[in-house]
Amino acid sequence: MLANFKVVLVETSHPGNIGAVARAMKNMGMNQLRLVSPKVFPHADATARASGADDVLRAATVYSSLPEAIADCRIVLGSSARDRTISWPSVTAREAAQRWACQGGEDNIALIFGRENSGLKNHELDLCHYLLRIPCNPEYSSLNLAAAVQVVCYELFVATGVQFSSNIGDRGEEPLATAEQMEGFYRHLLQTMADIGFLHPERSKSIMRRLRRLFNRAQLDTKELDILRGILRFSQNHNLK
Amino acid sequence: MLANFKVVLVETSHPGNIGAVARAMKNMGMNQLRLVSPKVFPHADATARASGADDVLRAATVYSSLPEAIADCRIVLGSSARDRTISWPSVTAREAAQRWACQGGEDNIALIFGRENSGLKNHELDLCHYLLRIPCNPEYSSLNLAAAVQVVCYELFVATGVQFSSNIGDRGEEPLATAEQMEGFYRHLLQTMADIGFLHPERSKSIMRRLRRLFNRAQLDTKELDILRGILRFSQNHNLK
Repeated sequence: MLANFKVVLVETSHPGNIGAVARAMKNMGMNQLRLVSPKVFPHADATARASGADDVLRAATVYSSLPEAIADCRIVLGSSARDRTISWPSVTAREAAQRWACQGGEDNIALIFGRENSGLKNHELDLCHYLLRIPCNPEYSSLNLAAAVQVVCYELFVATGVQFSSNIGDRGEEPLATAEQMEGFYRHLLQTMADIGFLHPERSKSIMRRLRRLFNRAQLDTKELDILRGILRFSQNHNLK
Repeated sequence: MLANFKVVLVETSHPGNIGAVARAMKNMGMNQLRLVSPKVFPHADATARASGADDVLRAATVYSSLPEAIADCRIVLGSSARDRTISWPSVTAREAAQRWACQGGEDNIALIFGRENSGLKNHELDLCHYLLRIPCNPEYSSLNLAAAVQVVCYELFVATGVQFSSNIGDRGEEPLATAEQMEGFYRHLLQTMADIGFLHPERSKSIMRRLRRLFNRAQLDTKELDILRGILRFSQNHNLK
């Protein structure tokens, strides 16, 4: 149950927080923990705060980059407290639970939580399909890392016990594209835009961010991805004929 | 808001946990904290873990007995993870929130949380109208104190109905494309695919259907539409240079 949900912690500073996250997860029946460049791990503080959840800690996998850590995930949610200047599409923890935990799907789903002090950076949120929001006091909105994980995992756990019949965004049998496939598509898109002379180098960053937001929002399936890459390929080769 | 809810901690051992509870409360717009015979308080660990919620700590009141601490409360809920031999009536955190937080009542309501290691004793639960339960993994059900407070306060906050703009797919100020603009885009897309030699006439219908489904699902705004049409235009003219 919930084994397809991967909790991904990015550059956590305090090992105690990693332990507290492991405990919060296990309390809600979850055990898939991924760590991106933790400052100190493993560490006695992590084990101490994990309490009886040291099995989750021991099974945690460490990655050197976020794209690697989410490569096999088809849905990517990034936790964020701050308001962003670009408004990414967002879901609340409860909406996410109702949408993705109720049906017991098998797609890997990444739940990304950023640094204790500064959260996730914009280029990390670019990898996400949705911002994951926890409703809270707008004047004091920064939850402790383990507390944020606790609330999200709690919502997922509660949702597994509730059957929902509504199927949002049904689009047939094709599997969703993985994060790795999406990154390949974005590289291809960027290259094509350069090849056809569309890209103004100074504007490329904001244009790519908009295009990422668009295609992440759409959650491409693999068939759609094939079609789009086909179009890109023909655009690139158009002048060779 | 929620000022009638009193979080009551009984004989907390670690001052750091009291600080973490203060933070968890303030994150959810709550600030009424009562401490029954804390082992050490005040303490630097409490202030450190409270982060920016030291105002909640400073305003906390200390009592020497639980009956004193809840004397002015009309509804008394005692948090419990363990199954008890005597079955008290119980409510889940969500039920409690729906029952007592939605209506913005004025009755004081006590939310009692026990010791880190042993919770509440039976004679303390005797003072409670209901056990307050947090659904969790039955094989690992002991939440960290602050984590339990976090989940309960979160449920109360959500129930007050403070609405957040968690629009799925909301993306700011750009107006969504009109149906007419979308049709113009699809015509342009079809023409471009023909121009660059991508389109197999016999497959065009099913490919266009897939692409329509994709972009309709994404609900393009006008700015995104402009970018996509720019890319199409450059693809078409690519061979002219």
